[in-house]
Amino acid sequence: MRPESTQQVLAFAHELADVAGAAILPYFRAGAAIENKAEQGFDPVTAADKAAEQAMRAKIRAERPEDAIVGEEFDDHVGTSGWTWVLDPIDGTRAFIAGTTTWGVLIGARYEDRARIGIMDQPFSGERWAASPERGFWSRGRARQPLVTRKKTALDQAILATTDPFLFEPHHKQAFLSLRAATRLARYGLDCTAYALLAHGHIDLVVEPGLKDVDIAALIPIVEAAGGVVTDWHGRHHPKGGDIIAAGCPELHAKALALLTNP
Amino acid sequence: MRPESTQQVLAFAHELADVAGAAILPYFRAGAAIENKAEQGFDPVTAADKAAEQAMRAKIRAERPEDAIVGEEFDDHVGTSGWTWVLDPIDGTRAFIAGTTTWGVLIGARYEDRARIGIMDQPFSGERWAASPERGFWSRGRARQPLVTRKKTALDQAILATTDPFLFEPHHKQAFLSLRAATRLARYGLDCTAYALLAHGHIDLVVEPGLKDVDIAALIPIVEAAGGVVTDWHGRHHPKGGDIIAAGCPELHAKALALLTNP
Repeated sequence: MRPESTQQVLAFAHELADVAGAAILPYFRAGAAIENKAEQGFDPVTAADKAAEQAMRAKIRAERPEDAIVGEEFDDHVGTSGWTWVLDPIDGTRAFIAGTTTWGVLIGARYEDRARIGIMDQPFSGERWAASPERGFWSRGRARQPLVTRKKTALDQAILATTDPFLFEPHHKQAFLSLRAATRLARYGLDCTAYALLAHGHIDLVVEPGLKDVDIAALIPIVEAAGGVVTDWHGRHHPKGGDIIAAGCPELHAKALALLTNP
Repeated sequence: MRPESTQQVLAFAHELADVAGAAILPYFRAGAAIENKAEQGFDPVTAADKAAEQAMRAKIRAERPEDAIVGEEFDDHVGTSGWTWVLDPIDGTRAFIAGTTTWGVLIGARYEDRARIGIMDQPFSGERWAASPERGFWSRGRARQPLVTRKKTALDQAILATTDPFLFEPHHKQAFLSLRAATRLARYGLDCTAYALLAHGHIDLVVEPGLKDVDIAALIPIVEAAGGVVTDWHGRHHPKGGDIIAAGCPELHAKALALLTNP
């Protein structure tokens, strides 16, 4: 894979994010029809979710027909190019329903099973976090900043985030509470924005249980390009979902992971 | 008090919000120096907080010298006009520090002890929720929407918000957990944005413990103008802080308050 091809894929990913945002925004705060696809518990899917994924899939099929597609709402599409798109049109559907702007469009691209390209786009605020393996950038309109995590943060000075503290299973709850007690402050309800702000240097740790592949695939390249670390709670890199821990630097990651493992 | 005077006061409040936002934005996501003013616990105050309050106080002193001022960072100023400004330049300082956009500038104005005017401004996103007793509006750039709460929501369909579920004292914790279990979904970490989105019709219930006067004074007129209800957990209207419950309509307020009181 030549370096320029990665940039070409990133440029295409930006176009996908534009398409997805345009499909979603008419539904935001508009009381869009909501389905409940889970038989137990609550797992809403909005019409916006489906519209955005269909729009992105149509563009990939038309312009990069040899790429594979993994999405949240529709069946996997097999490809032959070595590239796989991993799409979560609205990460944070509960946030979307409540009218908050912590949700985002997640677009990841893997080459031969390794996450290479990631975009987290918030079409309402106009903020976008995007990365190739070489570098990551935040942008909003004409504003643009390189993504660099905060380094060398002591655990007791770290800002921790998790979307919903009630999502931890009983055997993980004490691990989260120990980490929360050891850090400076905790923030909740951020969905994918937590990982974006970690890459941006504002948040130091994100821990979340039970993510899916589409929830994290796009965020791994963004965090890694900024100097951060993403693993599962066993310390394995490039997780395809599961219990996730992200940190601004390897040292903080090691300390937090040790506490999670031995709360 | 003539009706037009309320609109004049609201127009001045909009100018205060402009001044505060301009003072704050240079510090947002800029690693501003942070103080810790609490001897126990964590209560950060940023340079932005003080700069914005000073800017607003200076404008009030210059243009409405007979008004009283109650602010978060500086001493109260006694007035003679009957109007009191209640200022929280950054509600949600923890959110601000973490780089999220759920914080807001809160500007309330009371006339003879009754909240009349309220503004919640988010200068980064450009969203503003503002109300006089007659009506409330959300605006962003040229976009403008009237504020109307969602009505007749069943408790088990309600969207609940609280900023930090760990802030409840032990004797209130069970009350919150009962309410959470009775509602459709709960969102966290929203600070003043929760009340703004309730007035906007996207969130149905907000419950929070231990608020200060400056945390809620500006939000009461916004919620009430939209058809919602704000009381303390004893059901008293126009609370000056304390344990707060806000609801989209009186019926839902009564149901939720009954559950909080007898969890």
